[in-house]
Amino acid sequence: MPKGRLLQLPGMRLPLIQAPMAGVSSPAMAAAVTEAGALGSIAVGAGDAETARRLIQAVRARTAGPFNVNLFCHAPGVADPGKEAAWSERFAPLFGMFGTRPPAGLREIYRSFLVDEAMLRMLIDERPAVVSFHFGLPTASAIAALRAAGIILLATATNLAEARAVAAAGIDAIVAQGWEAGGHRGMFDPDAPDDKLGTMALVRLLVAEIAVPVIAAGGIMDGRGIAAALALGACAAQLGTAFVATDESMADAGYRAALVENGGKHTVMTRIVSGRPARILPNRFAALNGTFTADQVPAYPRAYDLGKALHAAAQARGEHGYGAHWAGQGALLVRAMPAAKLVRTLAGELEQAIHKRSPA
Amino acid sequence: MPKGRLLQLPGMRLPLIQAPMAGVSSPAMAAAVTEAGALGSIAVGAGDAETARRLIQAVRARTAGPFNVNLFCHAPGVADPGKEAAWSERFAPLFGMFGTRPPAGLREIYRSFLVDEAMLRMLIDERPAVVSFHFGLPTASAIAALRAAGIILLATATNLAEARAVAAAGIDAIVAQGWEAGGHRGMFDPDAPDDKLGTMALVRLLVAEIAVPVIAAGGIMDGRGIAAALALGACAAQLGTAFVATDESMADAGYRAALVENGGKHTVMTRIVSGRPARILPNRFAALNGTFTADQVPAYPRAYDLGKALHAAAQARGEHGYGAHWAGQGALLVRAMPAAKLVRTLAGELEQAIHKRSPA
Repeated sequence: MPKGRLLQLPGMRLPLIQAPMAGVSSPAMAAAVTEAGALGSIAVGAGDAETARRLIQAVRARTAGPFNVNLFCHAPGVADPGKEAAWSERFAPLFGMFGTRPPAGLREIYRSFLVDEAMLRMLIDERPAVVSFHFGLPTASAIAALRAAGIILLATATNLAEARAVAAAGIDAIVAQGWEAGGHRGMFDPDAPDDKLGTMALVRLLVAEIAVPVIAAGGIMDGRGIAAALALGACAAQLGTAFVATDESMADAGYRAALVENGGKHTVMTRIVSGRPARILPNRFAALNGTFTADQVPAYPRAYDLGKALHAAAQARGEHGYGAHWAGQGALLVRAMPAAKLVRTLAGELEQAIHKRSPA
Repeated sequence: MPKGRLLQLPGMRLPLIQAPMAGVSSPAMAAAVTEAGALGSIAVGAGDAETARRLIQAVRARTAGPFNVNLFCHAPGVADPGKEAAWSERFAPLFGMFGTRPPAGLREIYRSFLVDEAMLRMLIDERPAVVSFHFGLPTASAIAALRAAGIILLATATNLAEARAVAAAGIDAIVAQGWEAGGHRGMFDPDAPDDKLGTMALVRLLVAEIAVPVIAAGGIMDGRGIAAALALGACAAQLGTAFVATDESMADAGYRAALVENGGKHTVMTRIVSGRPARILPNRFAALNGTFTADQVPAYPRAYDLGKALHAAAQARGEHGYGAHWAGQGALLVRAMPAAKLVRTLAGELEQAIHKRSPA
């Protein structure tokens, strides 16, 4: 299987990537993971180029090692005033319970990297070792410019067609995001039919069919899971949920409590929070899944503007149940500890799992 | 991890079970798999005790080794004449296209092992090495009687709660059936909410939480997949779809053609064919998924009476698209060859995968 350039990065001693998680990962987390020998990640898609630059510099203040900078490549959300007004109206009683009203209009809160020239210029200027894409691919010219700058590129695929597009675009490695994965499903088109391929099937299919290194993601929580990913032919595993409860996580107390209390019980795939399918813990927001049809939800990330406002309003009244408490199906196995210790623990488990599996 | 008695069976040299697949597996397949050093299986839930006895004897005529006999433990379907008449009416135009009419009334075509005393007596009399249960657990007295007869027992679980029930019932090993798996999902209650746990997450959760050996199933098509299952802590892997295209498979030409033509493209989880959720290739029957709500479908296996009649009517006119073309999400990786050769191939791939993973 092709390993590609990713695992040849200086300092990357483990086939392990800490998933970029907007709102959860932090420069401290990324740096701690990188220093421990894996690949740390930050997500910068929620801010502008200068905010992203500061985040990159904040990682660099803590480590000289390689890390990954993640960007959202969603098709920019199309405003639909009628749909958005109806969506806000639907949530008005809930906002009312928290003494406020829904936002008067929904905004495109995340600028897609597809249309963010300043972000591209900043990346070429800062040259992080790795840049990764979620929700699609950037333009061919952006890919060419980033590659010319020596940056290793990763992109998420949830099926074979997306993986073929990633490979054809000249991306260095594919993040095979299985159905188990927490947070936003990286499907290019959220309205296209979704085969919901589990990690076990998806990784094997991509490794067998695509001549680009594959990184396994979804439902992997420990060294045994990483060993399984490698056995499937992945060059590395990407873990997100496993890092949500680390000390360096930006997850707030309500999120951490929900993760421990509800961990692994019944995660829900829903587009109610943001407008795109995402896997979340079974909190009050998730419980509203099924009370609407997909075509009633405003486009991502416009719906997320309301989702974030609802969480803020609820939290101001002490109700934590409307947070974006993303988690994967393996959440029950989450561990609270410093990120560096988690990486060391994962490394030890991986070595043990491989050792156990070797012929006696 | 506990390996249990299963892998100590004489002649079982590989941590591999050929899944029992009613209508697909055959005594010849089970015997060939067992003779090759894995555990062959037959499914006998579609017939009565004497039919099952003949199937068991047909395996024994071909091998002296251990094999698995699978039974359906579904809650017997409740007749609902109004719902069933409406369901038949819905399909009347389609039957009409094939020059016939839907069945006048739907029958309980599969007798649940829960209420089949003759089947229990036959099993205790024949004493196959292994008996496995799908869709639930038999009565405590049946379990006690089978155990007293020295039979190793397996049961399917799709989540932690079902696995806990399996362990509490004194079953020897749990078949952890992930979301990827083809054919009928083994959930105890088809109308309960389904967390759709992928194999990667489900196996780790059960291995971590339950002190009974776990067999991984779902999306596993080759030796790398088996190696991944073992890395996750499973004591064995169960493969179904991988065996559908073997020479000994009872899959008809239409099914085999669909598997090769549509393999791995877009399998569908639907209850339209049988009344219970099951994963099928994207044929004409599957394409009707989404045109009804779950509560409109008659209970399993009563709906299956119509499903089978529709397939028969269509096939009589040369239309193969209404068959129960079950397949898992890894179907693209299916291989047509004799079952014994497939087992040898899997064994070689497994050894290579384990060898590759050992510390260099």
